[in-house]
Parts: sequence; structure tokens; C-alpha cells
Amino acid sequence: MQALKDRIIREGKNLGGGILKVDGFINHQVDPALMDNCGREFARRFKGVGATKVLTAEISGIAPAVTTAFHMGLPVVYARKTKPITMPDQVYLTLSPSHTKGRMVELIVSPEYLAGGERVLIIDDFLASGATILGLVRLAQAAGAVIVGIGTLIEKTFEGGRQALAHLGVPIESLARIQAMEGDQIIFEDD
Amino acid sequence: MQALKDRIIREGKNLGGGILKVDGFINHQVDPALMDNCGREFARRFKGVGATKVLTAEISGIAPAVTTAFHMGLPVVYARKTKPITMPDQVYLTLSPSHTKGRMVELIVSPEYLAGGERVLIIDDFLASGATILGLVRLAQAAGAVIVGIGTLIEKTFEGGRQALAHLGVPIESLARIQAMEGDQIIFEDD
Repeated sequence: MQALKDRIIREGKNLGGGILKVDGFINHQVDPALMDNCGREFARRFKGVGATKVLTAEISGIAPAVTTAFHMGLPVVYARKTKPITMPDQVYLTLSPSHTKGRMVELIVSPEYLAGGERVLIIDDFLASGATILGLVRLAQAAGAVIVGIGTLIEKTFEGGRQALAHLGVPIESLARIQAMEGDQIIFEDD
Repeated sequence: MQALKDRIIREGKNLGGGILKVDGFINHQVDPALMDNCGREFARRFKGVGATKVLTAEISGIAPAVTTAFHMGLPVVYARKTKPITMPDQVYLTLSPSHTKGRMVELIVSPEYLAGGERVLIIDDFLASGATILGLVRLAQAAGAVIVGIGTLIEKTFEGGRQALAHLGVPIESLARIQAMEGDQIIFEDD
């Protein structure tokens, strides 16, 4: 999606070690108009998959997942990383390595909001190694739900996430695919 | 706002101890159409305050803050509870008691996205004791920004948050004001 790529070129910063800083419009400060556009684009790309629910992980997935769900007319569930007191004792829980925290984090979904037979579209901010998304896949599968698609704002194709998710056999859509970051240069893959 | 009150009556659960469970449409599963409506309503109520930025706290404030910011044409910043590696070393940080975690949590904002002279509208899911919102106020004031309004989806008027924020002298708007929860009954204050 050109508007997102333009923004990454204008404001994204390569911090080295494969880390792309986009916290001026996605991860800390959010541009809601851009997120709305991204949500509209995901809704267009996943129109035919028959999704019944959007699933994401807190925190940075929430904004694009909410706008996508809005444009698809679906509810959205965000997996929690700590179990709030409002959640029942029996939950779906999996462990996932956190890139930014350097340790395993929990991903938790209540069975109240993810049921057998649901058709789940996963939306997240980044596709890097695919570890977080695989965690969401495990949660959905534990609930007896079916994954019907995966959408991310930014894919770092050099981290292999797409390959790690290929066995699912579902469409994987990223709105900006980065194949390399060298110094100040961010190089996109052709769509 | 009647649509929010209706939803609370239909799906909200009083868990006792002042805890209202609304995680079927706000805190875990999110109804994006309802959040869009709430954002539109906040935009209407705060049209005249001259806000330049919306500020919230992760996690549950993000959805209503993003939709409010969208309808006001403003950027939104969510205070982080852990400092990501993309954030500079010098940050605004304050401590705030967490109701659901039973301990103090950090609220962190990067000086990159909150500057002196900004006119900040705070949006959050709940107004209870006001402690989280007072934390956001301290962050904004540390940055030299001015608070111009506070909006929350649900206010529990019996927890005194409105009184704790009164000294700020800014409009405080809540879309559903609950004055008591008794057994299965949730009693709203008249608007």
C-alpha cells in the first residue's frame, strides 16, 4: 500500500539489528487516518475469506485490527499478555517469544470470545519471524477455530515469517514488504 | 450515550468489589462499530476545546482513543507500560496504581510525541478513582502540554474520580455514568 510505504520512507528509522522504528505513526503515536486506510485495505483483500472474527495481540496490533474489523463488520479480540481479573479461570494460553522484551510472554484468550467453528482473520502490526502470529494460531486452534487469513502492516521478508506460516495454507497479506534495511535505506520488495 | 448504556445493561456483569466486566465489547473483545460511535460522540462533545493531540494509556484506552482521534483529525499517543527498545533513553515516566494488577505500573511517553504547547485531550475506557488519568496528566504537564479535556467511556461515579480531577478545571465527559451496582443491577446516573 503506497501510503504506508511513503510514510515508512519519510518517518521510519532503521535502528540496526533488524529493528525498524515506526513509533511516530504505529507503535506509540498512532495516525488514525492511516490506520483507517490500512483497515479498509485489509477488508478489501480479505473480503472473500468468510471471516467471522478478527484476532490480534495486544498492544500494537490493536489499532489496525480494530479498523480492519470495523470495515469488515466483525468483532475483534485481542489476546492479553496478563490475565485480568475479569477473565474466567479457564483460558487458552500459549507462550511466545517477545522480540522487544527478550523473553517469553504469555498470550491469553478467554473461551468466551473464541469458539469452535469461528473463522479467524489474524491482523498484527509486524510480520518478522512469525512467532507472535504462530502463538495466535495456536490459541485459535486450541479453541477449535479455523484460521482463514493473516494480514500485517509491515513484513520484514528477511526474517522468514512468511515461510514459517506457509504450512497453514491461508492468504498472507502485508501492506509494506521490506526486503532489506541498509543504513538509512529501507528497500521494499515489489508487490 | 444510549447505545453504550444499552450494551452495558445487556452484557455488562457486576463481578462484585466495584468491578464491571465489559470484556465482550471493550476490554478483550471489542465492538469496533460501537467504538466508532463512541469516538464520534467524544469528537462532538470536545469539538470546541482546541485539542492538538489525544492521549491515552495502553491497553484498553487504545480503541476509543483511536476512534476519537480519527473523528477529530488528530494524532493519538498511548502511554506505554514498558519501555520498548525503539524509545529514546530520555522519557517522561510516572507511576500509577493499577486496579487490576494490585501494584504500581509505569506510564511512559516519549518526548518525541508530546511537546510543550500541545493541547491534550485524554481518552480512556474507565473513570474510577482517576489514578490512571492523573498519571497521564502528570506526563502531559511534565512535557509542558496543557490538558483541555478528559473523556471516558464508563464512569463509576461512586469511586470519586471526577472529584480527584476537578482541580484541572477542564470538561470531563463520560458516555455512561454508573452510580451503583447492586447484584445484577447496574444503575446509571441521569445525564
